Parts: sequence; C-alpha cells; structure tokens
Amino acid sequence: MVSGSYLTSTSTPTPNTSLLKDELDIVIPTIRNLDFLEMWRPFFQSYHLIIVQDGDPSKTIRVPDGFDYELYNRNDINRILGPKAACISFKDSACRCFGYMISKKKYIFTIDDDCFVAKDPSGKEINALEQHIKNLLSPSTPFFFNTLYDPYREGADFVRGYPFSLREGVQTAVSHGLWLNIPDYDAPTQLVKPLERNKRYVDAVLTVPRGTLFPMCGMNLAFNRELIGPAMYFGLMGDGQPIGRYDDMWAGWCTKVICDHLGLGVKTGLPYIWHSKASNPFVNLKKEYRGIYWQEELIPFFQTAVLPKECTTVRTCYLELSKLVKAKLGKVDDYFNKLADAMVTWIEAWDELNPSENPGRTAAVKPNGAAKGK
Amino acid sequence: MVSGSYLTSTSTPTPNTSLLKDELDIVIPTIRNLDFLEMWRPFFQSYHLIIVQDGDPSKTIRVPDGFDYELYNRNDINRILGPKAACISFKDSACRCFGYMISKKKYIFTIDDDCFVAKDPSGKEINALEQHIKNLLSPSTPFFFNTLYDPYREGADFVRGYPFSLREGVQTAVSHGLWLNIPDYDAPTQLVKPLERNKRYVDAVLTVPRGTLFPMCGMNLAFNRELIGPAMYFGLMGDGQPIGRYDDMWAGWCTKVICDHLGLGVKTGLPYIWHSKASNPFVNLKKEYRGIYWQEELIPFFQTAVLPKECTTVRTCYLELSKLVKAKLGKVDDYFNKLADAMVTWIEAWDELNPSENPGRTAAVKPNGAAKGK
Repeated sequence: MVSGSYLTSTSTPTPNTSLLKDELDIVIPTIRNLDFLEMWRPFFQSYHLIIVQDGDPSKTIRVPDGFDYELYNRNDINRILGPKAACISFKDSACRCFGYMISKKKYIFTIDDDCFVAKDPSGKEINALEQHIKNLLSPSTPFFFNTLYDPYREGADFVRGYPFSLREGVQTAVSHGLWLNIPDYDAPTQLVKPLERNKRYVDAVLTVPRGTLFPMCGMNLAFNRELIGPAMYFGLMGDGQPIGRYDDMWAGWCTKVICDHLGLGVKTGLPYIWHSKASNPFVNLKKEYRGIYWQEELIPFFQTAVLPKECTTVRTCYLELSKLVKAKLGKVDDYFNKLADAMVTWIEAWDELNPSENPGRTAAVKPNGAAKGK
Repeated sequence: MVSGSYLTSTSTPTPNTSLLKDELDIVIPTIRNLDFLEMWRPFFQSYHLIIVQDGDPSKTIRVPDGFDYELYNRNDINRILGPKAACISFKDSACRCFGYMISKKKYIFTIDDDCFVAKDPSGKEINALEQHIKNLLSPSTPFFFNTLYDPYREGADFVRGYPFSLREGVQTAVSHGLWLNIPDYDAPTQLVKPLERNKRYVDAVLTVPRGTLFPMCGMNLAFNRELIGPAMYFGLMGDGQPIGRYDDMWAGWCTKVICDHLGLGVKTGLPYIWHSKASNPFVNLKKEYRGIYWQEELIPFFQTAVLPKECTTVRTCYLELSKLVKAKLGKVDDYFNKLADAMVTWIEAWDELNPSENPGRTAAVKPNGAAKGK
C-alpha cells in the first residue's frame, strides 16, 4: 500500500467546503496517473482518498502532490483479503468496492478518473461532492411522489395533497449523480448514437420511489456506508468473468431492493460531473452482450424479490439475497451460482475488516496493510 | 349554452402550432371574465374551448373575441344531465370535469384562469399546450426508472442498464404540468411560507413509476380522454360538501391506480405555466382540513387497492373502484358513501353523453344543448 501525505501548499485554493471531511472517503478505481485530480483539487483536497489500482500492480500510479491518500493494488488486496480476495474483480472498475470495505468512514463518494468538474448553466463550477453530501444529509421520500422534486431543497416543499404523515421522510442511503457531455449509454446505444452528448442540465434531485428499480451508475455516486455499505458489492466482472459493465447495475439493484425493504431512501439527479470520453463501444459490446440478455431475467427477479421480515440489517438482507440469486438465477447461467457465492464471501470479508460493525460475530484480527496512510 | 364564433382577425398572431387542433379541447372552469386568454391567444386560438361557468348562472362571462368556444353554466349542466347533474360539483373548480364529459375529442387540456404564459430560462414564452401534446404523444416508462428522465426527448435516451424489452414504453394517458411563481401548496404550508415562490425551472419530464401515487394538480393538466377520460372525475366538492381542494387529488389517485392496472403511463414535469396569485390560505384551510385528516386513510387505501383482472376498461375499473371506496372508506366518513355513489352516477352520465364509447350499452338519446357552438 502506498500512502501520501497531506501538504498544504500556498498555491492550493481554499476548499469551498470541507463538510464531513473526517467522515467521508473518496474512492477512485484507476489504471493511470491521477492527473484528473488537479481539476478537483479545490473540492477534494480536504478529504481522504482511497485509490484502488486496477491491472498491473507493478505499475506506479502518480497522484498529484498535496492529496491525502492510500493506494491499494492487486497485491495489497490479495494480501489483505487472502483467499477472499477472489470476490474482488480484477481488470474492471468493479474493483472499487474494495475501497468501500477498507474504509472506516461513514460516507463514501466514488468517482471515475475520466470525470471532471462540470459547470452549471450560470457557468459556475459544480462542487459535486458538496451536493452529494446535501443529498445524503437530507431525507428521502420513497413512499409518495412530490411533483416539485426534492421537498427539502431551498425554495421547495411538499405540494398540496402530500400526506403529512410522510413528510418526515426516511434516511437517505444513496445519492446517484449524473453526467454532462458523454451520457452513460450501453454499447448498442453508443453504436447507434456516437455523437450524442448530454447537454441538458436538469436542476433536480428526486427520490427513486419504493418498488422502482433504476440503473445505478458508479461513475459519480455517494452513499452512507454505515446504512448500506455491505450491499454495495460490485460483483464479479472483468478478468475471467463472462461479463463486464454490469458491476454498478448489480450493486444498484441489490441496494435498491434492500433499501426498499429496510425503509431507506435513494436519490438521483444533481450533482452533475463532466464525463470526458466515451469508452470503446465495440469493447463494451463484448463485455455487455450476455448482460443485455441476462438482464431481461434479472429485472423481474429483483422486481419480485421479497426479503423476510426477520432480515433487519443490510448484511442479513444481503445474505438472504445471495440465496435467492442462487435459487432463482442459477438456472439462467452457472455464473450466478458463482456470483451468489462471491456475495457471501464479500460479506465475510467485510465482516473481517469491520468487526465492530457486527458485534454478534467474533472479531477478526485486523489484517496488516489496512492501516491508513495519513 | 353560449357559443362563440371563430373570427380570424388581422391583428391575431399566427399560432405557433396547431398540433392536434381538431382532436383536443381546452377546458376552463371559471367564475370571471376570461381576460387571461389574451395572453394565451397565440397558443390557444386554433383550439376549441369548453368553458364551464361556476357559481351564479345569471352572470355573463366575457370571452375575448376570436376564440372558438362553448360555455356551460349550472343551468346548462342541470338541463343536460337532469338528476345526474348532482355528481357535478358546484361552487368549486371541480365542476370542470363536466367539460371532459361533454367533449367529444380525443385529448383534453385543462387550465385555471389565473394561470399565464411562463417563460423558460432563456426568456422564451413557453407553449404549454405544445409540450403537453408532446408528452401525450410519446410513450411513458412506468416499469423502470430512467435516470436521464424522459428517454424519448431529443438529446436523451435510455441509459446503460435499462432493459431493452421495456424500451417501447406504454401509451401515455396523463401529462401533469407544473407552475412557476405560486407553488401549489396546501393551506398549512401557505400559512407557514406565505412568501415562497417557485423559481426553479426543472427542464425534465418523467414518468411517475408504477405503484407510486402522486399529487395531481388540475391547474395545468392534459390527458388522453379516450384512454382515461372516465377516471377523470373530480368528485364532490364545494357547495354542500364537507371538503374542497381535493378534487384533482381524488381524480389523480383514482387515475393513477387505474393507469397502473391497465398499463398506461402518467408523466409529470414540463410544461410550466405562470401561476399568478395564491388563493386565500384561511379559506383554503376551511376547505382542506377534513381532507388533510382523511387523506391519511385515503393514501393507504389507494396504495393497496387491487382491481380484478377482469376489469379491462376504464369504466369497469372505475365502477370497481367505487365499490372499494364504499366498502373501505365508507367507515371513515359517510361522505365517502356519497362519493362512491356519485362515482357511479358520473359513469352513467358519461355513458349517456358518449354512447358510442360503450357499444355494449343501449345508446342514450343525445340530450339537447350538447351541440357544439362552432
């Protein structure tokens, strides 16, 4: 594990905000030098970064000076998790979920290294992290739709006809942000519309209603790790696996089903980031094609998945979901049997790294190398 | 019934669009001269108006020259519907639903007479009707949430992870528009936030997901009368009734449950109109207070209402819903027994005025006075 020190340089702009700076980690999966952080410096420099290096562990990833970070490559992951490292994908950005597990903070923000600071229609740079924090710290309203969107935003409220008993809302577990410029399209849509750019700035945050699934993109995502962390497993993708680019989708569907069961909220909308470049649609098609087919069975599965009342924690919900995956999706493809097993391994690994979260279990010895770099 | 003739004046601006002009009626409930139409002239003048005059029928309502309209006052409604006129509210804008029934067009747009043309952020006047028509003519996506909002809008599409089998969408039955300036707040919120104005232009249209209820406001609303008309009953409000200001809410909840059952879509968002003045919160509180209380029982009722598979038309769904209202809400207050009866009367009256829509019934004689003014 490589760690960086926090250097306050006189040339560094003062951060606009350091809200929750001791309670939030920024998780970045990458295979390249993190020059993109320069643009984020005013917004990220007060925060701690967890960098998950994908691919060749012998390669050195350059992190701009002045950032406080810890970096894990594949060798670190293998050493820390031992045989359980098999649940962490390799050669796929799904590896980012190792960062969720190794973090000890209450909140996680994760962002891709091809995402830059976007501007709002007035030309002002958008502090995406600040908006995610606002989303996470204000309640969600999954039980009834508010036509003026997030009722907790300044200048908005619940409209006529919104039941008063539902106006307290519920705790927000997930804040899903969007992308200007390159939209998050699948390979077929990329191929059909290579020139389409997202230019529409929609000034809204809204709760995805209970019982409704959505496509959760991992590019610009924040969540309350204490509330929902163990459900944020990005599955088995990439090297040695039959699919890719369904890591965040899988996490999103599992998370949404569990949030609905536990009465937690999921918000989507603001903030936007600027997504700079489209990935190769031909490569994407190869990664996606089985997923596109399987998805037609996955959606009805998640739409009808019922968790027992006895499941009152994320980890018990998640283990129950893994059983359902095996029972109902195993027949779609043997891949789902492996995935169901990996879901269990993920929870075991999570518990090992986070023994205090699960006092019912024997606390595992803290593995070497999981210490923070700061 | 008073009717107006269509005069093409040289001073009249050319309408921006006359999309569906022979297939859409604009329904306006009012108690005053319709000077507000001057501002809408470029957008409405090609269309036929159905004006439902509330209150004193001896009063003359002035309609600006050049509009093609028919006007019904209480005497007309009583004459046309006979004893069934009891289902049409008096001294409440709920009377507007008479216009839905008397229309013979495929689409309805209804707007309040204190709503004016709003401007988009670029300063351009918004053609609300054109946007409603776009909403109604493009499909809805109630089964899965699209994070880039309406996937059928220019510059948008379905994002990665959206099941391909769901991309055809379903027919859109309802287009619910919003309001800049005075938001549609209930009396308690009006009292608490008298100065709040809606200044946020959210450039989005989205489908209210299946299984999710929303507060449907009748101020700026369009729908496909052929698909959902008989569910758009605005209930018993105003004179002689214990509540007001729940007319559109009631219609919205009934409509949504039936749309969900029949696989039809409901969109909300654009277009905005400019809502000029807040109604008196003290008067509103008197109208609303029972509704605020009853609503806490109504929402669970509608959330759990299940219509039998055999109900495959709006009218059979609506009659079934009236039975459920009587069975389950009658004990909340006797008002709901009366309302359930009125729901049946509404369908009977609808069928009398629209015999061809229900070929299984004996065609009723067309009542006098229902002829069009043009």
